[in-house]
Amino acid sequence: LAVAAPEVRIVQEGEVPPATIEAALVDEPPIGSLLEYRNLRVVLSLSAGVDTLLADTTLPNVPVVRLVNAEMANLMREYVAYHVLRLHRGFAEMERLQQERRWEWMSPSPSARSRRVTVLGLGHLGRPAAEALASLGFQVSAWSRTPKTITGIRCVSGITDLHAVLPDTEILVSVLPLTSETRGLLAEDLFGRLPKGASIINVGRGGCVDESDLLRALDCGQLSHATLDVVAVEPLPENDPLWTHPRVTITPHTAAYPPPETFVAAIARTLERVHRDERFDREVDRARGY
Amino acid sequence: LAVAAPEVRIVQEGEVPPATIEAALVDEPPIGSLLEYRNLRVVLSLSAGVDTLLADTTLPNVPVVRLVNAEMANLMREYVAYHVLRLHRGFAEMERLQQERRWEWMSPSPSARSRRVTVLGLGHLGRPAAEALASLGFQVSAWSRTPKTITGIRCVSGITDLHAVLPDTEILVSVLPLTSETRGLLAEDLFGRLPKGASIINVGRGGCVDESDLLRALDCGQLSHATLDVVAVEPLPENDPLWTHPRVTITPHTAAYPPPETFVAAIARTLERVHRDERFDREVDRARGY
Repeated sequence: LAVAAPEVRIVQEGEVPPATIEAALVDEPPIGSLLEYRNLRVVLSLSAGVDTLLADTTLPNVPVVRLVNAEMANLMREYVAYHVLRLHRGFAEMERLQQERRWEWMSPSPSARSRRVTVLGLGHLGRPAAEALASLGFQVSAWSRTPKTITGIRCVSGITDLHAVLPDTEILVSVLPLTSETRGLLAEDLFGRLPKGASIINVGRGGCVDESDLLRALDCGQLSHATLDVVAVEPLPENDPLWTHPRVTITPHTAAYPPPETFVAAIARTLERVHRDERFDREVDRARGY
Repeated sequence: LAVAAPEVRIVQEGEVPPATIEAALVDEPPIGSLLEYRNLRVVLSLSAGVDTLLADTTLPNVPVVRLVNAEMANLMREYVAYHVLRLHRGFAEMERLQQERRWEWMSPSPSARSRRVTVLGLGHLGRPAAEALASLGFQVSAWSRTPKTITGIRCVSGITDLHAVLPDTEILVSVLPLTSETRGLLAEDLFGRLPKGASIINVGRGGCVDESDLLRALDCGQLSHATLDVVAVEPLPENDPLWTHPRVTITPHTAAYPPPETFVAAIARTLERVHRDERFDREVDRARGY
């Protein structure tokens, strides 16, 4: 960063008085962290999720910018492609067969063309994930807050359209941000609208899923699997029933965590805009919540 | 098939005298199965691998046609994409963490752009697999018997070029047929040319891998993982050390096994050619071995 933005002095938290700082680079800081930074002009968020940041009532009233990173999008499409293929092809079942040293000639594999996957959220992470699934041949629908059009993907928006697409969804992938509209959206009512035996993958925010409803839906067979990269409380507590549920896959918030150097260009670009007093790209809309 | 080829009478083995049969539809039949079929004009193979068929010295001297099925190619690219992503992202390690109920913030994920994957074999299954990997962003090389050109993939042919590409290969995917040239190709010498800690995925034929050499290469750390959909003896015997090796993934020859109905069009097309006395597509070259 010192090389990419040589005109900027970069310091660590606590190195100089907070009031001398113009831009803060943060990654989900604890509540109150920015209270003393009275002369901030911008907050740069390494995390795509800014819900914790916006929930901080002491956050200075300056623009919050999400740093968009193409590598993060690549990692997200890898994660989503992998976990959809895992459910689609029954690879977890094959691992169980190996543990039992059983060679079983499997039933023929259904075609991706007949597999209906719905992606919730079409932002800079949801869209490449949906496109990767479409290019693997899946029948992809996608739901976003505002209407969008993507070739080869059935795009819908609004709650009525979501309800229309759910009964047709075998695998539901949530890449939603956490907002007042999405909190607890993946709960009993939504699960009940999916066909019996559907699966969900959550790579958005843990708070979008009602985990008690999820466990009930898994136990009664309404859902056949849940793959969760994010959970309500992270790290997931050791005694949480999600850890050991036979139809739950947990990964430790790792879907799209790129090396720090991949953020450098976007940070430098944003700091340049501070310097030139220009409008920011990807400024968070506080009312919208992301 | 009766609907797609109404002019053809379809019978099961043993239903009528073998000498009255003009075309045989087979899926790796036991040696000697076709001995009595003296008036055959063509053998249609459901299996992409025809090595067992060609090894049958009693096979009538008529064209052998491999039935090409787009769905088989789709399934192969799914399998290869999934298992390359599994190695690339360390998803097996995450499963182990879940078993121990351990949430561990992972190291940042390396980019697919920096991950060098080589595909051996660029036929109707190898090529779509290589292309799917390239479209996921991997740095893909591919090796084939005859020179080929594919945009975005470094294509090489001949043994010297193979040796040139191996030191640069982190994940080696074999989609090779079993021929006199490929039998035991994946053995100590080849493993030694890969960088230490490379992985292999075999979706071609078990006989292409020397399994004793493989176990030695895994045990000494030259290879870090082997994913095998095919093995020398199938079903893999219950006491085979591959089953329980911590760095081996076994799947029961399931990479590209599509529903039988997906073969109907290709079967009907081939039978039409028998009827019209036309040359066959995809006729097996017995000298070449596939």
